[in-house]
Amino acid sequence: MPLPLEADTENRKRIVALLEQRHIDGLVCALPMHVLMLTGFCPVMGNAVAVVTSSGELHLLVPEDEDDLAAQSSTAARTVFHPGSLQAITTPTEAIKRPLEQLISRLTLGRSHIGIESSAVEHAVSYLSQCAYQSVLAELLKESFPKAVIVNADDILHVLCGVKTLRQLHAIRLSCGIAGAAYQDASPRWQPGMTELEVAAIFYSAYSKAATLPDVIRSEARFFCMSGENSATANAAYARTRQRTIAEGDVLMIHCNSSVNGYWTDITRTYVCGRADPRQQEIQAAIAKARAQCMACIAPGVAAAEVDKAARDVLTQQGFGANFTHGTGHGVGFCAASAHAIPRIHPKSVDQLRTGMTFNVEPAIYIEGYAGFRHCDMVAVNANGVELLTKF
Amino acid sequence: MPLPLEADTENRKRIVALLEQRHIDGLVCALPMHVLMLTGFCPVMGNAVAVVTSSGELHLLVPEDEDDLAAQSSTAARTVFHPGSLQAITTPTEAIKRPLEQLISRLTLGRSHIGIESSAVEHAVSYLSQCAYQSVLAELLKESFPKAVIVNADDILHVLCGVKTLRQLHAIRLSCGIAGAAYQDASPRWQPGMTELEVAAIFYSAYSKAATLPDVIRSEARFFCMSGENSATANAAYARTRQRTIAEGDVLMIHCNSSVNGYWTDITRTYVCGRADPRQQEIQAAIAKARAQCMACIAPGVAAAEVDKAARDVLTQQGFGANFTHGTGHGVGFCAASAHAIPRIHPKSVDQLRTGMTFNVEPAIYIEGYAGFRHCDMVAVNANGVELLTKF
Repeated sequence: MPLPLEADTENRKRIVALLEQRHIDGLVCALPMHVLMLTGFCPVMGNAVAVVTSSGELHLLVPEDEDDLAAQSSTAARTVFHPGSLQAITTPTEAIKRPLEQLISRLTLGRSHIGIESSAVEHAVSYLSQCAYQSVLAELLKESFPKAVIVNADDILHVLCGVKTLRQLHAIRLSCGIAGAAYQDASPRWQPGMTELEVAAIFYSAYSKAATLPDVIRSEARFFCMSGENSATANAAYARTRQRTIAEGDVLMIHCNSSVNGYWTDITRTYVCGRADPRQQEIQAAIAKARAQCMACIAPGVAAAEVDKAARDVLTQQGFGANFTHGTGHGVGFCAASAHAIPRIHPKSVDQLRTGMTFNVEPAIYIEGYAGFRHCDMVAVNANGVELLTKF
Repeated sequence: MPLPLEADTENRKRIVALLEQRHIDGLVCALPMHVLMLTGFCPVMGNAVAVVTSSGELHLLVPEDEDDLAAQSSTAARTVFHPGSLQAITTPTEAIKRPLEQLISRLTLGRSHIGIESSAVEHAVSYLSQCAYQSVLAELLKESFPKAVIVNADDILHVLCGVKTLRQLHAIRLSCGIAGAAYQDASPRWQPGMTELEVAAIFYSAYSKAATLPDVIRSEARFFCMSGENSATANAAYARTRQRTIAEGDVLMIHCNSSVNGYWTDITRTYVCGRADPRQQEIQAAIAKARAQCMACIAPGVAAAEVDKAARDVLTQQGFGANFTHGTGHGVGFCAASAHAIPRIHPKSVDQLRTGMTFNVEPAIYIEGYAGFRHCDMVAVNANGVELLTKF
């Protein structure tokens, strides 16, 4: 059921409160995940800029080709700019300079504290190629507004991305639902003799059919298939589908990162080709138990490190402690694969769970040369404890 | 036929010559397309760093999970770093700081001129989420090596990306060949009644089967389907598959951006569902003629603006001048969708074609509310004129 397009007042209140607390008068952001979090619109080419003020005004500088998408997904005030034409070759910096200056002046931010993105960050990509402003926005602001104070606002952005509003949670629930439908449609349809590439394509096709709900403006999906000994390397920072052919008895790990309107999922299911043998059953049972312990533990106020411990203790008791080589989860929603997104479900995490946080729970066992097993769910923290977003 | 892994001496010579000419002693780059161009290895998560010296030394700082990929694709000297572990949560900046400092010191670049990426740039993404260092590498270098002079090296990188070595051209040819095989396999298999999403998935599946050659280390593909009046909007900066159902008589535009080992393609074919009617035939003929005029014109030494004019003149003569709303092409290979990649085949371009340049040739006619037609090929400039890389 689509939500009507209206302002996310919950988000605006939080933004205003954080900006006031940090004595920042305005935020200027261009990473698509930050523009999405601030405005509800997920840019495509990465050259759009969001400007938010401490009085709660929300503005977008949008390239002309993305204005219809922005209008469908955000109530922010929009100013269209032109990245190029047949009359001139315009660099990304030239295209944004004047519109940004005019907006900053109009909002009387020219002598104030302006927060920007500065630190190295793992961010969600929005298209196959996209604009990286690098240090250019900071330089433009310093040059055009020498009396402004440019400050690093990454801590604020981090917190705002970590805790979702009801509208943002609704969007993530939709994204998870479509991915789940793809899993349910595709999982009975792969068979031994297919390559990993072919199996991944079956899941992709199923996703393409599932992503046809009326409130999907833009979607994309990556399905990865890692089988047999390849699945043992799925603890890497990235997933990778290869050319291996699947045989009877193989483990088959299907990993998905999909996005609907910019909201990402991070999901894994592990299947056995044919009947699981005793060793495979033992591993599956250990992971199921670790998962159940995590779920039982999730609630507002709980330390994220406790959730990690819940999974790790089970796997250690079952003799697989050394095979669970990564944290139990991390924030997911504005980005899929960032180990640094709040809450970090990691032994050394200092984060505390709060209502509205969404993350993945991914207990796993990787045995080199043999196989890897992972069950990765998406969850949201609510007042009652946990909402499972991947109910399949 | 895979090329054996050996140093790209042609590339090294060009890098050394350009660095000497600009009095730069070393280059530090992290955008995946630049790391690929310099070293032959395309990073995944975007945190790898390439360091190249004016004496022709080639170094890679590689996250541990990408070291095997780097070893398969590059002869650069590699240093592995660790982005995180169960013992500590490490930010991307913390992970790279020490390895970068040590490498710069070891190469005695600490008091020299170091070139970096600085300008806003359209770059190829390498994974669904990736590290953006933003201004961090520049800041680290300034802080750790206050006697170094940090200079913007974007002009050098631009030129190096624009002209491909024989090895790089070989890789782009392979990438185009696999995409072409997917088109040939999939194009007879779509039919009226399917949605755009379903048709795009058919091409994606075909690509997955085609991408199984032994020299494919990592590949990915995006196929977009734009039909009927949706195809008229394909002149936008980005392509977009929607939920429209294809009917008899519809125009069907299939756009592909795929990458093999980091080398990108940019290809479009336009089909008619059923028999083309006279108006559709007229448009197809005009585009074919524009394409032929471009091809005849491409040779080393020719002005890029002349190639644009060759297409534009034909389309204008045929009455479609106002419907060809973008440039005739742009450099493709290290990035797919950058209008600023050399050579810019645009009315205002100052670029001149050189042997080794690869770009797309994309004459098109967009008629609002009716349909869009585009034929986009990949070509390489060689001593004889032009090599068509998309022969299908």
